[in-house]
Amino acid sequence: MALLLKGFPVAKAITQQLLPRVEQLAAKGITPTLAILRVGEKEDDISYEKGALKRCSQVGIAVKQLHLPQDVEQQTLLDAIGQLNRDDTVHGVLILRPLPSHLNDAAVCGALSPQKDVDGITPYSMAGIFTGSSVGYPPCTPQGCIEILEHYQIPISGKRAVVLGRSLVVGKPASMLLLQKNATVTICHTRTQNLPAVCREADILLAAAGQPQMVTEEFLRPGQILLDVGIHPLPDGSICGDVCFAAAEPVVQAITPVPGGTGAVTTAVLAKHVVEAAEKFSEKKEK
Amino acid sequence: MALLLKGFPVAKAITQQLLPRVEQLAAKGITPTLAILRVGEKEDDISYEKGALKRCSQVGIAVKQLHLPQDVEQQTLLDAIGQLNRDDTVHGVLILRPLPSHLNDAAVCGALSPQKDVDGITPYSMAGIFTGSSVGYPPCTPQGCIEILEHYQIPISGKRAVVLGRSLVVGKPASMLLLQKNATVTICHTRTQNLPAVCREADILLAAAGQPQMVTEEFLRPGQILLDVGIHPLPDGSICGDVCFAAAEPVVQAITPVPGGTGAVTTAVLAKHVVEAAEKFSEKKEK
Repeated sequence: MALLLKGFPVAKAITQQLLPRVEQLAAKGITPTLAILRVGEKEDDISYEKGALKRCSQVGIAVKQLHLPQDVEQQTLLDAIGQLNRDDTVHGVLILRPLPSHLNDAAVCGALSPQKDVDGITPYSMAGIFTGSSVGYPPCTPQGCIEILEHYQIPISGKRAVVLGRSLVVGKPASMLLLQKNATVTICHTRTQNLPAVCREADILLAAAGQPQMVTEEFLRPGQILLDVGIHPLPDGSICGDVCFAAAEPVVQAITPVPGGTGAVTTAVLAKHVVEAAEKFSEKKEK
Repeated sequence: MALLLKGFPVAKAITQQLLPRVEQLAAKGITPTLAILRVGEKEDDISYEKGALKRCSQVGIAVKQLHLPQDVEQQTLLDAIGQLNRDDTVHGVLILRPLPSHLNDAAVCGALSPQKDVDGITPYSMAGIFTGSSVGYPPCTPQGCIEILEHYQIPISGKRAVVLGRSLVVGKPASMLLLQKNATVTICHTRTQNLPAVCREADILLAAAGQPQMVTEEFLRPGQILLDVGIHPLPDGSICGDVCFAAAEPVVQAITPVPGGTGAVTTAVLAKHVVEAAEKFSEKKEK
């Protein structure tokens, strides 16, 4: 039976480490503040926003919610971002994505001030992740995976990590974060040949392919650590990940459940980034 | 006996494709121009500069050489870069690096205008390489490796590529370029366990570890394509790569020689980037 790498204890530990830092900021008259920018009324977005609100309230982070209509014009959205950039009371901005298809995603991401980019969407943050420098912030989901590994004291250095998926939201940044922790990283994707065999090489397998239950027994071997980033609704109303849990759980050493695994840590990482951004703002103000 | 992947024919083919493009620019009154900024009198730098000059003259690219003393102050260097940024007759800037240690490399790289960053050193280019967008330019050496593979019609898509080394100059950008070409990419480094076994998995092995002749027979198997980015002087005055050529050549399917392999293509890629930058400048002017 595999060790269950539950996300809630990880999120709780991160949250508790933030409390004294928020108190220190309060003593300086600063309330760390996150602005959440949502376009339209997509269910996923509303659900994630709700989770972020709850997490922020636990930590003592104020939230400004900005809701724009589904058919908002590009310029209106850019203006809203510009206003948040200039607002000294806002330390971090979360733009819920993917955006409706009539909007230019790259232009929107690029418009955000790098200092407030707490979910790693600007070119500046991308460069920071790629170079391994502390410039900007990594996206919350892949960083959450690293937080889980560290919380459960799973060694990364020298291990073989296989990342399934090369999206900019998870796969590529996760690869760079694992590389920074000295894993030997392999990046797989739809063109990978002999995918199951490549995945079996992994000590740490991070599934971020966006395909429900595609990781089956033939991808796995005993001793593996399995991180599942997928979230897919099933016809019966439940949700599943990229991994076929029933097939994997008897084989591997440890596995994140879905739900309650990697997804449960994301908002805690977001809160951590907002507090960090508020601290940087405070240091800059003091200079 | 392995196929020798010589760099000179690749460089020649790239150069010849550039000639009509330079003519078209000339018809618009534009001479593509590269500024080379060198600090100090390091032998490697002088030798690379000489190679770049020769290549540029073949292509019809004008070169402005700027030489600053070894002990130049940071601000003087930044001012020189600022001046090149503003100079409309300069389309690309090559800053010879590594810089002397008293200079802040990140600040210097960040000061260069992204539009003129023909060797992929700005955060803007880094983000472009990471995201796989056409923003900025990749560094010339790793792109030269891709040019060699394409010239010799070696398939990349679906193949396993192992990159030995994770520097920002070669290893990391090479990994991203190979990933863009749909290779399954593994990034290895000093902390990698069982390195020879991991390297034997490669269909394409790119050695950029910076260690003379560290790739020996146990890293190799028949059928592999071997790209060697190393350049190391030997006591007898000759130079060698990261690969022990005598051990590799009887085993692998194809190998780049050192010298005359990957290094021979770098200045051709540089010239290609300068012409591209001049073309973009010309298009922008026409709008």
